[in-house]
Amino acid sequence: MIYDTAIIGTGPAGVSAALTLRANDKKFIWIGSKTFSDKVGKAERIANYPGLPMVTGQEMNDVFRRQCEELDIAIEDRMVTSIMKFGDHYALTAGSEFYETYTIIFATGVANVGTLPGEGELVGKGVSYCATCDGFLYKNKTIAVICTAKRFEHEVEFLSGLAAKVYYFPLYKDPSRFGENVEIMSERAVKMNAENGRLASLTLKNGEAVSVNGVFCLRESVSLATLLPGLATEQGHIAVDRAMVTNLPGVFAAGDCTGRPYQYVKAAGEGNVAAHSAIEYLASLR
Amino acid sequence: MIYDTAIIGTGPAGVSAALTLRANDKKFIWIGSKTFSDKVGKAERIANYPGLPMVTGQEMNDVFRRQCEELDIAIEDRMVTSIMKFGDHYALTAGSEFYETYTIIFATGVANVGTLPGEGELVGKGVSYCATCDGFLYKNKTIAVICTAKRFEHEVEFLSGLAAKVYYFPLYKDPSRFGENVEIMSERAVKMNAENGRLASLTLKNGEAVSVNGVFCLRESVSLATLLPGLATEQGHIAVDRAMVTNLPGVFAAGDCTGRPYQYVKAAGEGNVAAHSAIEYLASLR
Repeated sequence: MIYDTAIIGTGPAGVSAALTLRANDKKFIWIGSKTFSDKVGKAERIANYPGLPMVTGQEMNDVFRRQCEELDIAIEDRMVTSIMKFGDHYALTAGSEFYETYTIIFATGVANVGTLPGEGELVGKGVSYCATCDGFLYKNKTIAVICTAKRFEHEVEFLSGLAAKVYYFPLYKDPSRFGENVEIMSERAVKMNAENGRLASLTLKNGEAVSVNGVFCLRESVSLATLLPGLATEQGHIAVDRAMVTNLPGVFAAGDCTGRPYQYVKAAGEGNVAAHSAIEYLASLR
Repeated sequence: MIYDTAIIGTGPAGVSAALTLRANDKKFIWIGSKTFSDKVGKAERIANYPGLPMVTGQEMNDVFRRQCEELDIAIEDRMVTSIMKFGDHYALTAGSEFYETYTIIFATGVANVGTLPGEGELVGKGVSYCATCDGFLYKNKTIAVICTAKRFEHEVEFLSGLAAKVYYFPLYKDPSRFGENVEIMSERAVKMNAENGRLASLTLKNGEAVSVNGVFCLRESVSLATLLPGLATEQGHIAVDRAMVTNLPGVFAAGDCTGRPYQYVKAAGEGNVAAHSAIEYLASLR
């Protein structure tokens, strides 16, 4: 059997694509984690998702799981390891399984490249990737901001308006001047340290440490487009147009893997659009 | 005071933009209907909005209203009737109010009731979009009122107290009874006709014509071309890129007004992206 669509990824973009494909009676396979998105699950509080006021990430995942269960939408808990073009369709390998599909929707999120030792375990416990989402948690607190590009500086400014003190680690040249509470650090941060399961400090390259309540990592993230050779990328993200169409026939993408802003409702919106584009493409095959 | 942003429209795109601007501490004005989107409100059942399983449209609007109330986000219940560029910012007229803003987010939905042939050229020459602004011009005269929604009926009442005769064209079901001078028309108006450069009559679908001194079009939104001259469109939608940036500086758009698919979560996603683009633009002004 050849599926109409394979959705890869179980974050908000994947959920949204699955709901829309189901509403349209398409035969699809959905590959990812049965516990939905780790990134969502670790979010302390989500302030701007229309329809889910101030939920925790875990609450959002729970709502998504119930909504999918009610519609009998199942997840294959596997990781896709390779994709090949196969005549007019694609073949996916996931563990020992093999799936054939006419269309693919990438909803794979961003891979956190260049993470610091200790960072992965502290996501949602002091480590954040989104100023808009989590900034308010650090009102009048001490934070660090690690930033890879000048164009994220407005997020630094936003954070400096909330936090009492900001240790700023720019990983680019000529950072702007900020307010008095922003200390621009010349030493790089090399490690994140926990105390009682929460982020407590950063170790600097010279061996010193700074105590912080939280750290924001503002990075250009790189996506894993290596999975499908020939898939065009732009600054580390899968290149798509407004219809979420990639450069490869029948291949679509949605969510963080297509670029900023890394926001749940943006991802959900794109998952919907990608599903509609896949449906349109399937109609054109007939 | 000049606002950071004006959001026009209170559907899912507007809600999403408002939540994100609030999370970023931006000063914004939100203009639309206090009852949120009529289109959403009329939806029987929404099957594919992630996070709100199988809600009715009214339930969706209720969730949005509570979410905004909890964050003290208020709606100005008005209709924007004109927008002008004003140096480095924009000036909006809405009824008798006047707002200044650096950025605008259009979240106006689809103008499902397009303008009539002849209408565009006759704005200010017999065609008006604002009863309170222009009603007094038609004291003891004969006017037509074209109205898309029951919630504008108070404006019809206001006009019927001024005009000698009102031909009323309701584009919704079960219009209320008005005074004796209000004639409810069963035929639709299909064309506006000029004489000596001013509106003189409406042509009806059955070919008949009614002579009028003026016509008031009470719609969800004013035709975009009339509202903001120079705003680029594509096949009847506002032309945007993936960042929801239009051709005009500081002007963004989100939701149905940017094109298909006309889906609530797509609109909400775009509202989020438009807000982030507005924030980035505001940062660039400094």
